[in-house]
Amino acid sequence: MSTLIKNGCILTAENEYQADIFIENEKISMIADSINLAADTVIDAKGKYVFPGGIDQHTHFDALCNSGDENTSGYEATGSVIAGGTTTIVDYAPQDPGCGLIDSIDRRINERAKGLIAVDFALHALVTEVSDKIFDELPLLAAHGVPSIKLFMAYKGSPLYVDDGTLYKTLQMSTEYGVTVFVHAENADIINLMQKQLVSEGKTEPKYHADSRPPFVEAEATQRAILLARAVNAPIHIVHVSCKEALDAIRDARSQNLPVFAESVTHHLVLTREELERPDFEGAKYVCSPPLRDNSHIDALWEGLRNNWLQTISSDHCGINFKVMKHFGDDDFSQIPNGSPGAADRMHMIWTNGVAKGKISRQRFVEVTSTNPAKINGIYPRKGQIGVGADADIVIFDPEYRGVVKFSDNPNGVDYNVYEGREQIGRSEKVLLRGKLVVDNGKFIGEMGQGQFIPGKPFGSCYQNL
Amino acid sequence: MSTLIKNGCILTAENEYQADIFIENEKISMIADSINLAADTVIDAKGKYVFPGGIDQHTHFDALCNSGDENTSGYEATGSVIAGGTTTIVDYAPQDPGCGLIDSIDRRINERAKGLIAVDFALHALVTEVSDKIFDELPLLAAHGVPSIKLFMAYKGSPLYVDDGTLYKTLQMSTEYGVTVFVHAENADIINLMQKQLVSEGKTEPKYHADSRPPFVEAEATQRAILLARAVNAPIHIVHVSCKEALDAIRDARSQNLPVFAESVTHHLVLTREELERPDFEGAKYVCSPPLRDNSHIDALWEGLRNNWLQTISSDHCGINFKVMKHFGDDDFSQIPNGSPGAADRMHMIWTNGVAKGKISRQRFVEVTSTNPAKINGIYPRKGQIGVGADADIVIFDPEYRGVVKFSDNPNGVDYNVYEGREQIGRSEKVLLRGKLVVDNGKFIGEMGQGQFIPGKPFGSCYQNL
Amino acid sequence: MSTLIKNGCILTAENEYQADIFIENEKISMIADSINLAADTVIDAKGKYVFPGGIDQHTHFDALCNSGDENTSGYEATGSVIAGGTTTIVDYAPQDPGCGLIDSIDRRINERAKGLIAVDFALHALVTEVSDKIFDELPLLAAHGVPSIKLFMAYKGSPLYVDDGTLYKTLQMSTEYGVTVFVHAENADIINLMQKQLVSEGKTEPKYHADSRPPFVEAEATQRAILLARAVNAPIHIVHVSCKEALDAIRDARSQNLPVFAESVTHHLVLTREELERPDFEGAKYVCSPPLRDNSHIDALWEGLRNNWLQTISSDHCGINFKVMKHFGDDDFSQIPNGSPGAADRMHMIWTNGVAKGKISRQRFVEVTSTNPAKINGIYPRKGQIGVGADADIVIFDPEYRGVVKFSDNPNGVDYNVYEGREQIGRSEKVLLRGKLVVDNGKFIGEMGQGQFIPGKPFGSCYQNL
Amino acid sequence: MSTLIKNGCILTAENEYQADIFIENEKISMIADSINLAADTVIDAKGKYVFPGGIDQHTHFDALCNSGDENTSGYEATGSVIAGGTTTIVDYAPQDPGCGLIDSIDRRINERAKGLIAVDFALHALVTEVSDKIFDELPLLAAHGVPSIKLFMAYKGSPLYVDDGTLYKTLQMSTEYGVTVFVHAENADIINLMQKQLVSEGKTEPKYHADSRPPFVEAEATQRAILLARAVNAPIHIVHVSCKEALDAIRDARSQNLPVFAESVTHHLVLTREELERPDFEGAKYVCSPPLRDNSHIDALWEGLRNNWLQTISSDHCGINFKVMKHFGDDDFSQIPNGSPGAADRMHMIWTNGVAKGKISRQRFVEVTSTNPAKINGIYPRKGQIGVGADADIVIFDPEYRGVVKFSDNPNGVDYNVYEGREQIGRSEKVLLRGKLVVDNGKFIGEMGQGQFIPGKPFGSCYQNL
Repeated sequence: MSTLIKNGCILTAENEYQADIFIENEKISMIADSINLAADTVIDAKGKYVFPGGIDQHTHFDALCNSGDENTSGYEATGSVIAGGTTTIVDYAPQDPGCGLIDSIDRRINERAKGLIAVDFALHALVTEVSDKIFDELPLLAAHGVPSIKLFMAYKGSPLYVDDGTLYKTLQMSTEYGVTVFVHAENADIINLMQKQLVSEGKTEPKYHADSRPPFVEAEATQRAILLARAVNAPIHIVHVSCKEALDAIRDARSQNLPVFAESVTHHLVLTREELERPDFEGAKYVCSPPLRDNSHIDALWEGLRNNWLQTISSDHCGINFKVMKHFGDDDFSQIPNGSPGAADRMHMIWTNGVAKGKISRQRFVEVTSTNPAKINGIYPRKGQIGVGADADIVIFDPEYRGVVKFSDNPNGVDYNVYEGREQIGRSEKVLLRGKLVVDNGKFIGEMGQGQFIPGKPFGSCYQNL
Repeated sequence: MSTLIKNGCILTAENEYQADIFIENEKISMIADSINLAADTVIDAKGKYVFPGGIDQHTHFDALCNSGDENTSGYEATGSVIAGGTTTIVDYAPQDPGCGLIDSIDRRINERAKGLIAVDFALHALVTEVSDKIFDELPLLAAHGVPSIKLFMAYKGSPLYVDDGTLYKTLQMSTEYGVTVFVHAENADIINLMQKQLVSEGKTEPKYHADSRPPFVEAEATQRAILLARAVNAPIHIVHVSCKEALDAIRDARSQNLPVFAESVTHHLVLTREELERPDFEGAKYVCSPPLRDNSHIDALWEGLRNNWLQTISSDHCGINFKVMKHFGDDDFSQIPNGSPGAADRMHMIWTNGVAKGKISRQRFVEVTSTNPAKINGIYPRKGQIGVGADADIVIFDPEYRGVVKFSDNPNGVDYNVYEGREQIGRSEKVLLRGKLVVDNGKFIGEMGQGQFIPGKPFGSCYQNL
Repeated sequence: MSTLIKNGCILTAENEYQADIFIENEKISMIADSINLAADTVIDAKGKYVFPGGIDQHTHFDALCNSGDENTSGYEATGSVIAGGTTTIVDYAPQDPGCGLIDSIDRRINERAKGLIAVDFALHALVTEVSDKIFDELPLLAAHGVPSIKLFMAYKGSPLYVDDGTLYKTLQMSTEYGVTVFVHAENADIINLMQKQLVSEGKTEPKYHADSRPPFVEAEATQRAILLARAVNAPIHIVHVSCKEALDAIRDARSQNLPVFAESVTHHLVLTREELERPDFEGAKYVCSPPLRDNSHIDALWEGLRNNWLQTISSDHCGINFKVMKHFGDDDFSQIPNGSPGAADRMHMIWTNGVAKGKISRQRFVEVTSTNPAKINGIYPRKGQIGVGADADIVIFDPEYRGVVKFSDNPNGVDYNVYEGREQIGRSEKVLLRGKLVVDNGKFIGEMGQGQFIPGKPFGSCYQNL
Repeated sequence: MSTLIKNGCILTAENEYQADIFIENEKISMIADSINLAADTVIDAKGKYVFPGGIDQHTHFDALCNSGDENTSGYEATGSVIAGGTTTIVDYAPQDPGCGLIDSIDRRINERAKGLIAVDFALHALVTEVSDKIFDELPLLAAHGVPSIKLFMAYKGSPLYVDDGTLYKTLQMSTEYGVTVFVHAENADIINLMQKQLVSEGKTEPKYHADSRPPFVEAEATQRAILLARAVNAPIHIVHVSCKEALDAIRDARSQNLPVFAESVTHHLVLTREELERPDFEGAKYVCSPPLRDNSHIDALWEGLRNNWLQTISSDHCGINFKVMKHFGDDDFSQIPNGSPGAADRMHMIWTNGVAKGKISRQRFVEVTSTNPAKINGIYPRKGQIGVGADADIVIFDPEYRGVVKFSDNPNGVDYNVYEGREQIGRSEKVLLRGKLVVDNGKFIGEMGQGQFIPGKPFGSCYQNL
């Protein structure tokens, strides 16, 4: 099966230029100023941008599989993701109860995602039951195609929480076994104290979630994680940076030539903490951690993206439904499950709020939404670029599209969309996954289960300068 | 009773000059180029330096009162302290088992020290049983003359350990109630991990104590404590800084105009970690935390003293006997009780290794051993200076003295001296406590119980620039 | 002749306390809680502060002696200085036309000041004719009691200007010969450009003076001077720091342990650039360099004084009359001679705007107006302190005084006062110079010519940490 | 005319991959995994790397055209450059005597290079006669295809030297007219002083050249240039960074998000100052400014390249012959004309000393030798990349080649090669210029005059983050 994309303007992390693309056997086989070969499918991309499919390196599609909640979907929601222009996710593989890291990874690949997932996917190991067993499994991760492990400095009292000793030892081992450590950096003790203080003062509404996790709480854990990584000469990846203070610590580390990488997340770049004040408990939809901040932090994050203090934009998608699960915290914001959906809207929300407003260039858009995540997770150059030999994961993007985000246009697996009603500039009109047209006119037309597991190479790019 | 000191060269934190001093009613009543008034006692200080009695703001003389060990003395050892030129200590008042902070303080003043202590003394509250009760008592401390509270970020698993929430809340309250927070800054989790790792590898000798607490462990906790203090705009005092990395964090904070104060300790300025390798388990005598470091750190600390990144030198005296208690760790260095004696030798070891070697000036010697500790603990100008109106706590110091430190010359309450056999330049020949000659020819000739409690003023100097 | 000051509260850089002072042979011979010796003069200082006479280390009293202008007075105006509480000035000794440094110094001591000057004085060498001859004389300065030399990085085109080579060589030699280099740090080229640009645009009024010398012009020269000093390991003294940007460079250098010292000036701490907009050319009275800035810089300077990034406050007194000389610039602000009077008002303007408003403590007031300038210029401990053995240069200060600055109350040698009409809190009621009462009720009652030359010790304090 | 390159491994700044390249009409028209189209020329690149032709943004080929020396060649030497794998130079267009910038540029394009130059070329305006006329011409540069201007902070006393006012005004105007300012940053005054001092001490040999320009001289001017650029919000490009101290200033500026760009030069990355000590005056061959440094600086520069503190590597080629011109300084090193040849050897010396030794990756090699210089000079994406639509300037590089640099193998227009006898790993075996094979087997086989002027776009990349 062959496909020919004609007349588009190709966007890469480096450049933009007019050319045609020919695809055979799922891969880009030719790029030329004009291609007139016969093809099974011919797409006219005149007036459109043609760029590599988005890579979302931070999703939790299978996070709630053990929650027992029937209203929340997992990989069956990934059709909406590809409809939004993202062709690969790097999903977190949480340890299943009583299971090891490897078994939990294998279960995602062979059972959970199998026949269901609509996007290609790589995985991060995610520690949810901290014990010394993880140190037995760490050496095996890279060989399983999972060269990353996620640890939580936050959530003390939950099984997710790791103390500094565990973090340190993981960092120490990571350099030997080709694994990059990803951390959620917030100071758990201070959050616990502040939650108790606020609730004891009767401040139980969702909006107090932000008060319980002020910027210094994130900045402290960020600088601590960096210092520990430095002590053992390990790379470290700070996920979902939300505030200027944490960003300062990252910038300082990077200016000292430390292998520190950092991620931003769509909702921190677009939404403010005012959302938490929505009436009728709707603020709970916006409860995620770190919390939404104010505009001064949003400005700082865009500056960080321009200056390469931040290398990626992810969604941190978490499909917690509002109807049931968010209401666990009706009487106490600290009981609201943390997380919001977003994988389906990442690409156009970043284009709308970043590119269209002049905050980042089109090249930087491609770099932070696709090329860099591919490198970090060791799936570049197969993914993350438009080049001969690469998987033909391609977005045909219409920059002239104007619309408004509606949940009903692209249901994302839960019962709300945090960007509902917001302006949308540009749209992923057509999307190809490994050469197959799976989105047309912005609608998913592919098959569930079309996605494949993409093993990551050891270390990813953790010893390169991004 | 009156005393006249003639012909000495007076040293202050600012200056040095020839003058006579007249003392009445325990206080300095006159300083003049020549005084010929009749006095009950006349001391000829020709060729001697005359400076304010040392103030040691970090001692643990009553730390072991609940240990049941009969070989270890407490305040009954303070005669040796004054014989060494220190006239006031700021002793830590640990919570007694099941007792509150205030009761434990009152017990030190009214029972433990009463009739026994040979030096004047102030107190720090020392939390040993962390619970929310300390927040009920914190507001009462300053009114009891104890404007400081000590918290331990190290020693997780022991009742001393405070988590970041407790530290943060204490800092938050401290600014309201006139109390300065003193912290022992080491990362408890990492130490626990390293201790376990070392012991599991069969590395159980005392020398591994230093390996279990490398500099980054101290630096991390130091930067964390500073960040938390900054978040609530509170002063903070970092005790016993031992390494360059922690000092860098302090220097950076001070250059940003934060009220961060820091202390160095005699043994970190004079001894290296090689002491821990002494045979016959004698290395255990030198087990203290943070541990002894190498010469590069010693150089950094003296630089820090010259540049005012460090404001004080204390002894961190802890009278743990070698014969019994240190041997608790015969099979495992992590079981060796931490702490070493040193209050009796502080003044001449600093003179010998600091002033005589040109590392600090005579003025700076007075400042860091006496004037600054008096200010920090709110007992200046009554203590810590030679001036009209001040308590006549005076050292007549012979700079020409040459000797060698011997335990037998001035037994310090336990069964060893960490400076045994080391060169001594200069000696506190005579010492006056509130005008009374209590040391002559370097020997204590006063009475046990002569010491008084000196209440500290709220905030001490924590809002001044030292 | 003896004098007894009773019942005052003595202020020092370190402390404050009630005591009596006895003076004999021009020096303080006794300080005691109560002195009842007979004295030729007895002063009751009840309710008053007693502190060391001010030391103004930056005056240009003899700057215009070769100008030929008859309206401008020099040392004959120093009666007003001592009436304002300053007992010693460190005056700049400009090279006389065709003369060397030493001859010009000797002329000030033996001719110009002789029989005329009302305050004690030390001198700085001031290079006004740059040539290699200054390198022949530099080695002789300290032996002449002048351990400092002033160079101008500004004023290119005038004989004052030194290029970087001359500055560098002077710094290089200074470390060998006990001399501290004082620099006026502004980028001369940029100022010349900006002056030309402004004048060519018809912007000729005095207010454009400030536009021609923006903060970065000062910051650039400051960082350059510091870098050159660092290259040869020389101390350097930055005079009249006026802006935050220059202060940042100084703070950074000091936090790296470099021997960098810096001075602030009364008018930069009290007045803003709005003064330059006064009608009727009166703005010209306020033309000095660096220029007056806005309040954000004033706040930064007070912060710098509190944090010891700045060590002194001087007046930069320059007695240029308004009637004739300032009018040289009627048609072009760049022709207005730079400089304003201020030595007579320094002490009470700093008390009023610094101490009374809580910006600096009484101790810091003494330190920056007297003790530190004495140390920096090598005349401490003879000057700059209240202590036995020191010269009895003493101010009896009434903190209850309330008034308004009036030129007519204390004419300063020219025809205006930049503080005219401003609130005055506190007053130097009585002043003693070497034990003699020379100011009473705020009026000069001494004799012209009573001042003596006070030789400075080599290096001053340039190798001490202030 | 068409060309097909088969079986090579394409290197880009981002990636490397196997593909064939088809060239028509001087441009790359197709890249595909396998191309079987008929072509006029077919090149088998099996086992070879295929990367974009080098771009050397710092050459002085026409610097000496007005010198009258007949032994020195200019553009007629550019055959050696393309033989070395560099297909485009950005040459400095010095003002001809009495001429303006534009006329001098036009003369290079239309007279000097015409029919002679063997490489494509862009130009920088180079000010050699500083006067206000340059401000009349600055607005015209970008429209002439020359979006850059070079100023010298060094060489005071020569007509090249610009004072800070001129530099500042040029920076100020540059932001308005699409021009980037390139500066040679060394402190002219200090160099003049040091030259005089050394010569007066009889230190006249070439080796003293390095002593006369120590690192701080470069660091000072670098920090000054950055501060002035910052004051007017202008981009600035620091050429030929040679030392750690200057690099630190650049790193700090870049970490603050300033548009500061910086270049390194082959000889500073490969050679040390020991070369200056060669006997028989041969050290003079290595006299360039900034001078060669020691290995600690070389290490710092490679670190700077890895960390993107430096964005480019150039040759700073200057064809001053040894036989005549270098001997102008026989008796005085300060009279030796500054500059050394190097354009012909840049690519393989960087491969040998950078890539082959693991100091930079192959991708970074392409980026710093070709892609970044193209962007900075506004000739990207036409130049500096392998992509459809780009000029077919292509190097077929044999990484297996082993040899030794010999002047006779590729004469560079003067009478020596600074890399003579050094190991060479890898070789530009074949080179295409706009699709035409002009180098084969490492020898130039093209025609003189084949080069074209390539106009640069206004601003180049000066507002992008490189």
